Amino acid sequence: MPELRKDPVSGRWVIIATERAMRPTDFKTEPQPIKGGYCPFCEGNEDKTPPEIMAYREKGTQSNTKGWRVRVVSNKFPALRIEGNLNKRGEGIYDLMNGIGAHEVIIESPKHIVSLTELDNKQVEEILWAYRDRLVDLKKDKRFIYGLLFKNVGTAAGATLEHSHSQLIVTPIVPITVMHEMNGCEEFYKYRGRCLFCDMVQQEISTGSRIVLEDDTFIAFTPYASRFPFEIWILSKIHSSHFEDLQKLEIEELAQMLRKVLQKLEVSLEYPSYNYIIHTTPFVLGEIEYYHWHIEIIPRLTRVAGFEWGSGFYINTVTPESAAEFLRNVNTEKKA
Amino acid sequence: MPELRKDPVSGRWVIIATERAMRPTDFKTEPQPIKGGYCPFCEGNEDKTPPEIMAYREKGTQSNTKGWRVRVVSNKFPALRIEGNLNKRGEGIYDLMNGIGAHEVIIESPKHIVSLTELDNKQVEEILWAYRDRLVDLKKDKRFIYGLLFKNVGTAAGATLEHSHSQLIVTPIVPITVMHEMNGCEEFYKYRGRCLFCDMVQQEISTGSRIVLEDDTFIAFTPYASRFPFEIWILSKIHSSHFEDLQKLEIEELAQMLRKVLQKLEVSLEYPSYNYIIHTTPFVLGEIEYYHWHIEIIPRLTRVAGFEWGSGFYINTVTPESAAEFLRNVNTEKKA
Repeated sequence: MPELRKDPVSGRWVIIATERAMRPTDFKTEPQPIKGGYCPFCEGNEDKTPPEIMAYREKGTQSNTKGWRVRVVSNKFPALRIEGNLNKRGEGIYDLMNGIGAHEVIIESPKHIVSLTELDNKQVEEILWAYRDRLVDLKKDKRFIYGLLFKNVGTAAGATLEHSHSQLIVTPIVPITVMHEMNGCEEFYKYRGRCLFCDMVQQEISTGSRIVLEDDTFIAFTPYASRFPFEIWILSKIHSSHFEDLQKLEIEELAQMLRKVLQKLEVSLEYPSYNYIIHTTPFVLGEIEYYHWHIEIIPRLTRVAGFEWGSGFYINTVTPESAAEFLRNVNTEKKA
Repeated sequence: MPELRKDPVSGRWVIIATERAMRPTDFKTEPQPIKGGYCPFCEGNEDKTPPEIMAYREKGTQSNTKGWRVRVVSNKFPALRIEGNLNKRGEGIYDLMNGIGAHEVIIESPKHIVSLTELDNKQVEEILWAYRDRLVDLKKDKRFIYGLLFKNVGTAAGATLEHSHSQLIVTPIVPITVMHEMNGCEEFYKYRGRCLFCDMVQQEISTGSRIVLEDDTFIAFTPYASRFPFEIWILSKIHSSHFEDLQKLEIEELAQMLRKVLQKLEVSLEYPSYNYIIHTTPFVLGEIEYYHWHIEIIPRLTRVAGFEWGSGFYINTVTPESAAEFLRNVNTEKKA
């Protein structure tokens, strides 16, 4: 059983995944790049993954066989376990609990594609629907507090399989990064009576210089205090605290925007490694006015060194304004 | 002039280093590994670095010539600038100030060595003295609030030069990571009336299973909630809030322990990339009871992926107890 342990100094929780444990000698070499060849996520290899939790598939086809378009399975090497109770306890000054949670993989296509942008808009919509359906299902479990959706693409971003996929990790604690964001937003709300992210959207629209893409419903921009070159956030222009409350028409617009933004990165930076993460409101809270779900896209072009680890300061050598200008001017048409 | 910009959501400050700016096309390739060959840090190449700020050198030798043992210079591509005023201001909902601060390099040996462990204890002591002397000098400048000492070793840890060196970045703001640590410690202090780190030292000594090395003055252990495999913290057993207040005898003991701990990592994990950082109390505070300076050593054996970025949770596949046991049993004698 993995353990969740709390660092009493920072309040950060760590998953000590003892069952995935590696021997110290396993670390003598650098992490290996992604292997090609045989792929457990490809159509026809359904028996090579844990059984499917959910799939969008052609009528009449059987679970764990061909015929699916998007397929969700448990991670074969889960960071957290779905079964058991938390058993919160102390060890002197330290706190721990059992590593209970969910760790799922959203396989985005039956074909061996390496990017979500190879799919058409309708297929990207189904990925977003899968995100939403899994959150809605998992929030029914009272042990779970938070669902973090994320995507690792490329070796530098920590991906170990090439076949386009996302992941969902559901935790019994609000992640500290989200908690810090929510605290900041709550303070702003107490002072101003408005959602900080909504104010940000207003200012970005009126300034214009950091906008990458904009439509009626969403805006993609390089944040004012971008940590990384070409960091991009996607926000809904209308206030919304929970990703899983997206309207059908919004999902259509979001799919289109997400695909286009990623295309711009791929075309202009030659398929960089990247992560994206979705920050949403914890399961236990209803609709709230002060926090606003959003997507953070982080190209992994630079390495994080001691200063960043030690301080939380980031040194970004590309101004968000020049990154946005560069990305605005990328023509994604030529790719097709 | 670089800018310091604040993310209003998380409260994190970012250095937008416009003068170091790279063109977007510079990012099309992966970061380059460290180059060998010509080295600006080697003895005889003193004119290839900015002029020295301080050096421990043989009597009668001139600044910026041979004869030094430890040499401190400004970073040739500083993240922050020493001259100017902060000019704190707003941009709508955003906050910014000029990127004022110091960015220095501590060159640890005139010889082209790649690890601090190639030096004897006396030489390592001089590195620690240089750390201390630079903090003491820079804290006299009222614009500066915090000094972060750190070391990047190896490509995966963000090093760009091989010659053994450390860096010091002095900022006009308390880094958010330190602020979060101090907040945690202050809460503990309010509740218990004791320093959290002192309690941690007590518990680690009585438990024993996470100790890597221990002497009369210092303890090196794998923290209970280690984020990374083989993460090690070094703490003074006696309460001390400021690194720069180290006693001479303590510096002797610390040099010996730091060297031995790094040797253990190098011998057992075959010279891994690593960072270390020193967390100490901000310049503006006097001796305080609730925060305790310490060194965090982070081997860079695994890659940080989307989940860690998005949540602040870390997944560690080596228990701190097995890492400590492994490191305790490493014989550093065989290296000599």
